[in-house]
Formats: sequence, C-alpha cells, structure tokens
Amino acid sequence: MPISETWLLPDGVADVLPEQAQVVETLRRQALDFLASRGYQLVYTPFIEYIESLSLLSESNHDLDLVTFKVIDQLSGRLLGVRADMTPQVARIDAHVRSIEGVARYCYAGTVLHTKPQNFNSSRAPLQLGAELYGHQSLEADIEMVDVMLGLIQQAHNLEGLHLDLGHVGLFRSLVKRAGLSKQVEQDLSDLYQRKALPELEEVTKTLAFGSDFYALGRYASDLNALEQHLSQDVLNDASFKTSLDDLKTTLSQIQTRWPNLRIGIDVVELRSYHYHTGLMYAVYAPNRAAPLAQGGRYDGIGEHFGRARPATGFSCDLYALCVGQFKEIETIVAPAGQDQQLLGAIAQARQNGLRVIQLLGNDDLSSVPYATHKMELAQDQWQINKI
Amino acid sequence: MPISETWLLPDGVADVLPEQAQVVETLRRQALDFLASRGYQLVYTPFIEYIESLSLLSESNHDLDLVTFKVIDQLSGRLLGVRADMTPQVARIDAHVRSIEGVARYCYAGTVLHTKPQNFNSSRAPLQLGAELYGHQSLEADIEMVDVMLGLIQQAHNLEGLHLDLGHVGLFRSLVKRAGLSKQVEQDLSDLYQRKALPELEEVTKTLAFGSDFYALGRYASDLNALEQHLSQDVLNDASFKTSLDDLKTTLSQIQTRWPNLRIGIDVVELRSYHYHTGLMYAVYAPNRAAPLAQGGRYDGIGEHFGRARPATGFSCDLYALCVGQFKEIETIVAPAGQDQQLLGAIAQARQNGLRVIQLLGNDDLSSVPYATHKMELAQDQWQINKI
Repeated sequence: MPISETWLLPDGVADVLPEQAQVVETLRRQALDFLASRGYQLVYTPFIEYIESLSLLSESNHDLDLVTFKVIDQLSGRLLGVRADMTPQVARIDAHVRSIEGVARYCYAGTVLHTKPQNFNSSRAPLQLGAELYGHQSLEADIEMVDVMLGLIQQAHNLEGLHLDLGHVGLFRSLVKRAGLSKQVEQDLSDLYQRKALPELEEVTKTLAFGSDFYALGRYASDLNALEQHLSQDVLNDASFKTSLDDLKTTLSQIQTRWPNLRIGIDVVELRSYHYHTGLMYAVYAPNRAAPLAQGGRYDGIGEHFGRARPATGFSCDLYALCVGQFKEIETIVAPAGQDQQLLGAIAQARQNGLRVIQLLGNDDLSSVPYATHKMELAQDQWQINKI
Repeated sequence: MPISETWLLPDGVADVLPEQAQVVETLRRQALDFLASRGYQLVYTPFIEYIESLSLLSESNHDLDLVTFKVIDQLSGRLLGVRADMTPQVARIDAHVRSIEGVARYCYAGTVLHTKPQNFNSSRAPLQLGAELYGHQSLEADIEMVDVMLGLIQQAHNLEGLHLDLGHVGLFRSLVKRAGLSKQVEQDLSDLYQRKALPELEEVTKTLAFGSDFYALGRYASDLNALEQHLSQDVLNDASFKTSLDDLKTTLSQIQTRWPNLRIGIDVVELRSYHYHTGLMYAVYAPNRAAPLAQGGRYDGIGEHFGRARPATGFSCDLYALCVGQFKEIETIVAPAGQDQQLLGAIAQARQNGLRVIQLLGNDDLSSVPYATHKMELAQDQWQINKI
C-alpha cells in the first residue's frame, strides 16, 4: 500500500483536533460535575473484559455481540471483548463489586468501540457518557433520570430546538401477553412498528387476536387520547397495560412541568432495543439528526447475569455527537526567551490565571508559533499581554 | 464456566471505584490544565487505527507490535490495531493532519491497551497522559519537557521522595559508531548494560575495540566525573560523544537550578527503548516502585513514517499509577422527597455550590442511601446541611 494510504483512518473513527477537543473536554467536565451534583458517583470501567461479562440478558445478547470487537487474551487464552457499551459493566459493579443495599447512582465517561456504526454516519468509537440508577423500582426514579438527562444536554445545547420522545415497552408487552402471540409474530410486529409501515401493519393485524388494538398502537402511537379512544375496553382494563399508560402520562406531565419550554412527543411503539428495556424509554432528538443525542430507559434485572437482579434505569449519550460542529479558538500567548526574573514572574502569573503561555526557545521569534494569538511585551517596565 | 467466574476481570485490568475514580479524575483535569497553561494543545486520538499507522520506525516496530491487540476491520477487511501508545498517533497528526510549520506542542490523555503488562505488576490498560513538542532540535526543548514533566508530577506527588534519572543515548551510540560494532554486538552490550552485569561486561569488552571505554560506560554510568576520568582521550574528543556529554551536563545543572530539592541521578546506559530515542532520556522513579512514574526523551524523525521527519521530544505517564493508593471520601448529602419550593431552592443552591445532593425518592428514608454522609434538615424554617 502506498505510504500516503497509511495516513488514512478507518471509517467511523477520527482525530479530534485541539479546537474541537477543547469543546469536548469542557463538556465532559461540566457533564460529570453536573452528575456528581446529583449524587451520581463516577466509575472507570475496564476497556477489555472476558466476553461473558460483556454479555447481558440472553435475548439482547446478539445485538451487543455483533458490535463487540473480540481478541484473544494472551495471558489466559480466553476470549476478551472490547467494551461496546458500559452499561453491562456498571451492572457488574452494582451486582458484584460494590453491592450496596439501597439505591446506587453511578456515572461514567469513556470511549467504547463498535465493529460497525450503530446509525447512519455515526462513530465507531463514541465517547459514551451516561448515568445509571440501581435499586429503585419507582416511576420517580425514571423521572429523575429523564430530568438529569435533560439537565446534562442543556449544558451543550439550547434545548429549544430539541425534542424529547417518551415511550413505554409495557404497552406492547401487555398486549402481546394478552393476545398470546408467538415470539416470531411479536418480532414481526415490532419490526413493522419500527418501520412505521402502517398499510402492512393493517394487513397483518387483521388476522390477529386483539388485531385492532395492535393496529391502533401503531396508528395512534404519538397521540395518547386518540389511542385510548381506539383501544378495546378489554385492553384498557388490563392492569399491566393501564399501569404502563398511566406511567407514561405521569412522566409526560411531570417533565412538562419541570421543562415548560421543551417539545415533548410520545411514541408508544418506539421499541429500539426493547428486549433490553422493561419500562419507560426516553430519547432526545436534534433537528436533522437521525441518531438521538441521548437515550435511555428502564432495564430491571440487568444484573441478573452477575447474580443480583435489581431495578435499574439510566441513559447514555455520545459526547462527540453532542459537540458536533462546535469549535473553540484557542488563545495562545507567546513570551520572549530568557531567564529575566520579572519576565518569568509574569509568565508564571499568567499561567496561574489560566492563560496559555509559551516561552520561546533559543533564538526563535514569533513565527515559530504560527498559531499564537497574543504576545507578552515589555511596556513602561511592565510585562503586558497584547493581541498579535 | 460457573457464573461466579464471569465476575472476574482479566489480569492487569481493573475497575476504578468512586473513591479512587474521583482522585484520578481530579488529577487528569489538573494535569491537562497544567499542560494547557504551558501551551500544549489537547488532541483526542482514535482508539483503533490501521496497523500500519500504529507502527513506527522499523527497529522499534517489534516491541510495539508485540503489545498491540489486533482485530479485523469488518468494514474494510483490513487489520486494525488497538492503540498501545499514543505517541505514534500524535506523530501522525503532526506529520500529516495538522502540519504546522514551526513548533507544535500537543498533549493527550486516554486509555491504551497492552497484550501483556509492560512491567511487573503493571496495568494492561494504563490511562496514558503525555505531552510532545515537535519541530525543535534544541536541548532547550528537552529541558522544557523535563521541567513540564516534573511540574505535572508535582500535582500528584510530593517530589521529595522521588528521583529523576537522566541519560543520553548519544554516548553509547557514538561509541558504537567509533568502534564499528555489528548490530548483534551492539544489542548484546545494550542487554548487559540493562542487566547491570558488570563482571560479564568486563569479560565481553576485553576483546572489543574501545573495550575499556565500553566498560567504563557501564562501570561509571552514574558518575560523570569518574566516567570522564576513565574514558580514553580519543572518545572524549569525539565530537558527537562530547556534544551528548555536554548536553547531559547542561540538563543536569539547569534542572537542578529549577528544582533545587529534587534528587537527580545520571545513568548513561539506561537504554530502554533506545532504538526509539535519539538523544536525552529522562524518567522519574518513586521509592519501592519498579516502573517509572513518568518517562520520556528525544525521538527525532518519528514522523518519517508519515512523510514528515521532524525533531521531537516528549514524555508520558500512567495516571492510574500516579494515583495508586490515593482515595478520597465522597461527601453525599441526602435531602427529603417532595416538591416544596423552599426545599427545591435549597437543593439547587447546594448543587450549584458544588455539593452532591440526592433527593430521596418516594417514601424512602435515609437508609436507602447507605453511603450518605450528610442530611438536609429544616431547622427554624431554614434548610441546613448537617453531618449524619
């Protein structure tokens, strides 16, 4: 391969250069500080683990398995996975490493790797930042999580243009159970919902038990009033269905109260990764962006694999995606070379004030630092900082 | 495998739990801020690259190659490496992505992976933090680098117990060139130096051209005065040898002046990764620790592989190793549940002041947060924060 080719990076990975790295770094700190102020404790999880530890509930296993890079551990001969998601790792910590009785709140930030991009144009090495709340079954915990997610996004974005989507896997699940659908039909329906394929849905549901309810779920997915009008009494009286619907309404109203200027939508058949989830689901979208800025939901029992099934709810986002297109000019001050005590004092002072100061090396002049924006100059026996 | 086994982590990787993660996170920020104040610009480099990009100068290739995890890119079918060192990545950026004329200063912090631990008991997933200075051939650049490295370590450690080791590959190299040694003999000698095997060295050097000089280099490796007394005039007059020796002396004296309380030693045959290095080398050691806390050196021409050979000097360290054994208790305040406006105001205020406040969910009492250290209580109509 020609040498110039070796400079190229694989698809879906990128260098983050200083003007953007500065933005990402600032947001990373703000986000972690924000989560800390809410009582979420920071953990760093390992980059590689035995593949068995990175798997989760058996059904969702396959998706995660497909995107996980595998390598052989030369020390043990066993198969390792490079983390593709930090949620299973935090579940392991909650279940086994730090098995607190009561409520545990964790947050994390780190690169994960995917064998293939998860969305059109998305990175294969997102900087995943997230928060998880373990040990509380209540809707209040979900609402706290949505609230925290919005608070975090607000630090990077004006929320006005954004859109919160709320859903709940319990509606579809209760209906599937009531109708006694096979796994295959359940999967087919879920695919139709995902594709928003209403004509096909109408066709398929005609022959199903509770068919009109399944159709209504897709047809009126974003309008709870219309949905209720079109569902059968049988379904509306189903205890599990009713709880899910009520939870969705309560969340909608409480989040609307706390975030009065936010656009909130409902999608009761937004079922991405719904094998994984067990209750409320939420995602924030930006205009003209296919992938959500952040997403999460309830996934009770996630720690079962590690011997401790606990209620759990949480969200994550890709910090790089949150900062896309944001750059910050970096101000760099150049000071002359030399050991003059007054000069060294002025440089030390400026650095302590958070400024970036480069002292020239040897006989270099300003041209040796082509990205310099300011220079330190002696004027009336005082070192001053002036624009270049 | 029994389920309990799946909880275990592979050798050389570990979870970092909140009490320690807090320390690492704080040091990470202080270190990057410190480097920014010195004009080093932050870059985030990709976690995976085509294997050709992660390789470097051909001779040092092999070491780096051995510790690099490889995976197949499902998108291109090509071989990818998981970064084992970020220096080649920064070299690529300097050479190709951001080819600034003049001096470029970069810094970075991120996890790297090693197939095998690099030192006894060392991590296979260090949190590598480092700085690099491109485009300046001078000794002043090296001295800036040593100074910056010490300033950075000082933020995590009392320097008093530490020890700076200075070396210079130029001494051995000039001698090898003068004696016209074969690659094999050069390698054998280098191994003997590394092992401090003086009797063997004495034996081997007896039959070599400039044998007594090679022996003196090992025998008086840490004492420049004694070394000069035992070297032949021929060697002492060698221009390249002399420059290396003078550089070492100048560095020693300048660093001693800037860091008067630091213990500084010399080791002219400390040749770890010397294929990689081309000039001054430096490392900081802590008592009772085999691996250095930080290390670096000059490695001119590192970007040649990417089509732009430039002078370069830099250092790196493992942040986890710098923080070993340091923990910080996390103060967590618990506030009662409820929507009382005065309460919510007090919580928001405390959070804004940088405190960690958890508001209880539902009917929970304090026992739901077993790690709480403080509670928010109403006293004389004021919300107060009291120790538990």
